[in-house]
Amino acid sequence: MTPRFAFTIAATDGAARTGAIEMHRGTIRTPAFMPVGTAATVKAMKPRDVEAAGADIILGNTYHLMLRPGAERVARMGGLHGFMGWNRPILTDSGGYQVMSLADLTKRSEEGVAFKSHLDGTRHLLSPERSIEIQRLLGSDIVMAFDELVPTTSTREVQAAAMERSMRWARRSRAAFDSGAEHAAGAAIFGIQQGALDRTLRGDSAAALTDIGFDGYAVGGLAVGEGQDAMFGCLDFAPAQLPADKPRYLMGVGKPDDIVGAVERGIDMFDCVMPTRSGRTGQAFTRDGPINIRNAKFNEDPAPIDAACGCPTCATWSRAYLHHLVRAGEMLGAMLMTEHNIWFYETLMADLRAAIASGTLKTYADEFRLRYKRPAL
Amino acid sequence: MTPRFAFTIAATDGAARTGAIEMHRGTIRTPAFMPVGTAATVKAMKPRDVEAAGADIILGNTYHLMLRPGAERVARMGGLHGFMGWNRPILTDSGGYQVMSLADLTKRSEEGVAFKSHLDGTRHLLSPERSIEIQRLLGSDIVMAFDELVPTTSTREVQAAAMERSMRWARRSRAAFDSGAEHAAGAAIFGIQQGALDRTLRGDSAAALTDIGFDGYAVGGLAVGEGQDAMFGCLDFAPAQLPADKPRYLMGVGKPDDIVGAVERGIDMFDCVMPTRSGRTGQAFTRDGPINIRNAKFNEDPAPIDAACGCPTCATWSRAYLHHLVRAGEMLGAMLMTEHNIWFYETLMADLRAAIASGTLKTYADEFRLRYKRPAL
Repeated sequence: MTPRFAFTIAATDGAARTGAIEMHRGTIRTPAFMPVGTAATVKAMKPRDVEAAGADIILGNTYHLMLRPGAERVARMGGLHGFMGWNRPILTDSGGYQVMSLADLTKRSEEGVAFKSHLDGTRHLLSPERSIEIQRLLGSDIVMAFDELVPTTSTREVQAAAMERSMRWARRSRAAFDSGAEHAAGAAIFGIQQGALDRTLRGDSAAALTDIGFDGYAVGGLAVGEGQDAMFGCLDFAPAQLPADKPRYLMGVGKPDDIVGAVERGIDMFDCVMPTRSGRTGQAFTRDGPINIRNAKFNEDPAPIDAACGCPTCATWSRAYLHHLVRAGEMLGAMLMTEHNIWFYETLMADLRAAIASGTLKTYADEFRLRYKRPAL
Repeated sequence: MTPRFAFTIAATDGAARTGAIEMHRGTIRTPAFMPVGTAATVKAMKPRDVEAAGADIILGNTYHLMLRPGAERVARMGGLHGFMGWNRPILTDSGGYQVMSLADLTKRSEEGVAFKSHLDGTRHLLSPERSIEIQRLLGSDIVMAFDELVPTTSTREVQAAAMERSMRWARRSRAAFDSGAEHAAGAAIFGIQQGALDRTLRGDSAAALTDIGFDGYAVGGLAVGEGQDAMFGCLDFAPAQLPADKPRYLMGVGKPDDIVGAVERGIDMFDCVMPTRSGRTGQAFTRDGPINIRNAKFNEDPAPIDAACGCPTCATWSRAYLHHLVRAGEMLGAMLMTEHNIWFYETLMADLRAAIASGTLKTYADEFRLRYKRPAL
């Protein structure tokens, strides 16, 4: 019988690890990139194409789904997997980040966050208990604890208080998860480390989470504008504070070179809207860095986006054709660009896994960085 | 060796015929429905999915393609087939209809139609010679003669003059096509019958076209607001005025019940934006008539759009899920709805071909009409 949740590290290379998480709905090869399926769809892609690109798991957003179509409705329709036609594992976030960045009139208390929907103004409450209940209604395979975020520009005192509240909420999240015995028997729950860029706060947070005990641990509160140097500075110590035998998930990251550097620092899981969002705005990822296909220089370029890419877009269509589609506002442009970008990310993860397995991660990462031009902001 | 253009009628049933057109790039089973690929894409669908739905041929729009990305550019990129990744036959219209319905500041003369692009205001001329040249640059398999359209509300005198000019333009189109010997060796050209709803004008037009000689003949100038009764009234005589041994193509038609009635009256080919456009606005076709998936009554409907449909959308997703996607403005909603609608149209054509082959068209058509509810306008 497939275990509920079994993480095996097959090889390490420095702080980096490669392995697999076995769950009922499938195996997740790590390091893993999870395409984001915000509103029960990885935007502009069919599930079978997401799977063909190499994704073992996708992410669903609790905040968006609770508002539309509604968690109870998804549950009545048999859960998120059947609803959207994705049969492999799904990780759901807790809604904590989105409620604070998207909702109107949020009001925080020890109980949770009261808010008005940005869609229709209806009033809702997200608390640890309600967040876990929603994730259970969705049928999530990996549930995230509900946490509190504060701006990175907050004082250390505010950061500390938010971290401590997040740890109390983590304990309530764990209890709420365990109280749903039927769901908990087949699903996993991750805690989220907070503490901004402060080593001591991060350490305290890791200790509190480990005391509660989770199936995996996320590094939260990064990739929120602090810049890559500051993020990597934090990742130089934060992952090592978390249990080595559990998966570590860096939420909301990131650009390809962010991922390479984070894998070198011991991260096992990632999610980001970048490949899908970029695909809808004309940006395509290549080993040489991103290109904007709308640029006039591509208007008669017969080459694929990336000659070394094995994706269906690069196998069939030229930059000139994609340039035309995107300029003309054709939906197929967003579809083909998104598919390429998801393939790019999933291929990057496969390459990173292979490099770790063969003990050549440093060489791979150095060559990647040498070639990959990160555009100026 | 595959013939350039060979139309074989395998069976007839009343005025209806079923058979096949053999061309270098593939066989077109008739009666055929051609999905519209206006701007070098069947909107929101990958070519492989268009093919899987049963389409043997698609239509490209000369007017749109000449303006963006430009016919010369498509030619430099190797032609429309390679550019868009569709290897089966393509029929291109002449641009005559679009230039008069979409362009700004059109000025007609015996030479052709001068106009300003609706996209960027640049000045262009479409004439029989330029239309055929564009279709050659695109690499069209079935080229349409350039014709002149006038409003259906015009006087008979105006209609007659436009028809006569269209016949002069048909002769120039044929000469221009033949002058491109290399292209003409692998492609076909269709003439377009005009004459509004007038039997005598239609007859004169058919005689003029037959005198020139074409590989196939379109019935033009219908489905422009005259209503189904008037259109069927014209189709009771117009197809029979055209050579029986050549394919007859009813341009821009139509709704499913329009197609059934036109097949009964001897039409072999159709094109229409209806399945693709409807798919992007939430309308799905079923044997019981179209449904608008945005309707609140579908918000928890676990059934597929049409339980009898064999398309990938109906195999996997519920009306409730499609309702959610379309309401949320998700691109996947348009993708899945469009794919279903193209399958619906292509399945209808397959059913019509089978009914003709077995001599049961009247029974099939009567049962179709009894069940299919055409919504009020």
